[in-house]
Amino acid sequence: MVERGSGVAVWRQIGELLAEDIRKKLYAPGERLPTEPELAAKFSVNRHTIRRAMSELEQGGLVRIEQGRGTFVQEHAIDYAIGRRTRFSENLLNQGVLGHIEVIGCQSLRAADIARHLELPRTAPLLRVQSLGKAENRCIDVSDHYIDENRFPDFADRLRTLRSISRAYAHYGVTDYTRKWSRITAILPSVEVARLLSQPKTRPILQVESLNVDSDGTPLQYSLTRFGGDSVQLVIANDTA
Amino acid sequence: MVERGSGVAVWRQIGELLAEDIRKKLYAPGERLPTEPELAAKFSVNRHTIRRAMSELEQGGLVRIEQGRGTFVQEHAIDYAIGRRTRFSENLLNQGVLGHIEVIGCQSLRAADIARHLELPRTAPLLRVQSLGKAENRCIDVSDHYIDENRFPDFADRLRTLRSISRAYAHYGVTDYTRKWSRITAILPSVEVARLLSQPKTRPILQVESLNVDSDGTPLQYSLTRFGGDSVQLVIANDTA
Repeated sequence: MVERGSGVAVWRQIGELLAEDIRKKLYAPGERLPTEPELAAKFSVNRHTIRRAMSELEQGGLVRIEQGRGTFVQEHAIDYAIGRRTRFSENLLNQGVLGHIEVIGCQSLRAADIARHLELPRTAPLLRVQSLGKAENRCIDVSDHYIDENRFPDFADRLRTLRSISRAYAHYGVTDYTRKWSRITAILPSVEVARLLSQPKTRPILQVESLNVDSDGTPLQYSLTRFGGDSVQLVIANDTA
Repeated sequence: MVERGSGVAVWRQIGELLAEDIRKKLYAPGERLPTEPELAAKFSVNRHTIRRAMSELEQGGLVRIEQGRGTFVQEHAIDYAIGRRTRFSENLLNQGVLGHIEVIGCQSLRAADIARHLELPRTAPLLRVQSLGKAENRCIDVSDHYIDENRFPDFADRLRTLRSISRAYAHYGVTDYTRKWSRITAILPSVEVARLLSQPKTRPILQVESLNVDSDGTPLQYSLTRFGGDSVQLVIANDTA
């Protein structure tokens, strides 16, 4: 299978063989690949050579390497709908995927520029809730949500338990909300965001800045959401056409 | 100004001085920086040092280097609205910028997957019109538009003269059209696209796949548009909320 002295580096040959297996669906999307020692034994090479081949596959977006968990075949990108009603769990369910929100941090802060988006006084106390958007076990977004701390005290705790932003708002009597605007940019992730998304930091991500308002039009939540570039495609449908 | 033997490389010191001047608006957005020989003389260094400093500023998104034209201070990103009515020139005019479409190529081809989007037979003749979206002199997008060649013969010639997609359609009696859907991804540009957008190929771009339909709902145009990551932010407004 692997041909030494062929002029093509052994790690590259192994990378191509594995890529071929993935394309032929011998390894399915989301499936864990054999471990480094297993692959090293299979191809009679050392682990360093396997690691080099895997790194190439990761750069090519075919697999993702999750620290401590292993290497997985990249799933197909999720079509994530952005519109008046933008709901994480609903969006995923429409794609046949179970999703939930996982809270990873929460701070009280004051920030004049964000308070302005929320139409609050410059020095109003804000909550920044940091969360991961999970599609089954895979992390597809890393978000910072900013909300009025006076109106939604303990929001992070509610979100931590209820694992859905809509359900957390419902706890405070806000039964509906809509997306007022979204602004989308393409950027490279920070080291931290790349790690949370299990992707190389050389692969672009989609950053969405957004504002949600309640049914009275009062700003509810200003968010910065970073979607893994291989995990998500943002879809804007204008079906009323 | 530049301190040799300070432990900070000279090219880096020059880069920081120029970045500072840009931040202080001593060079305005869109303004051409002095030439390499001029800067080399100003800082008493060789041109290679200046080139290294410029390359750093380009990587940082502060300037763009246009082959044969010079180095320009990066303009602020344009808010490009994506919605039911997505019009290039209107979008730019709303931002106070004059825009037009420049045709750079046109081919006849058959492509079953694209014909499917256009609801045409698999082997229907299609036109691929390649164009640049210009904001004044700056190229903000590189696009491939696919249309039904039978319905719109010589479309590229019309577009070349009229420099607006709406005006080109009007020539064929199509006075209105709407955007049915858009799908947005973050990718790295090809060498060719990076060159056309005057940006480094290490900076992400926004790729928008889209379908336009006429007032009867008949598919008109399937497009692949690549927006320079530093030039454009895509905005989705839901003002009917």
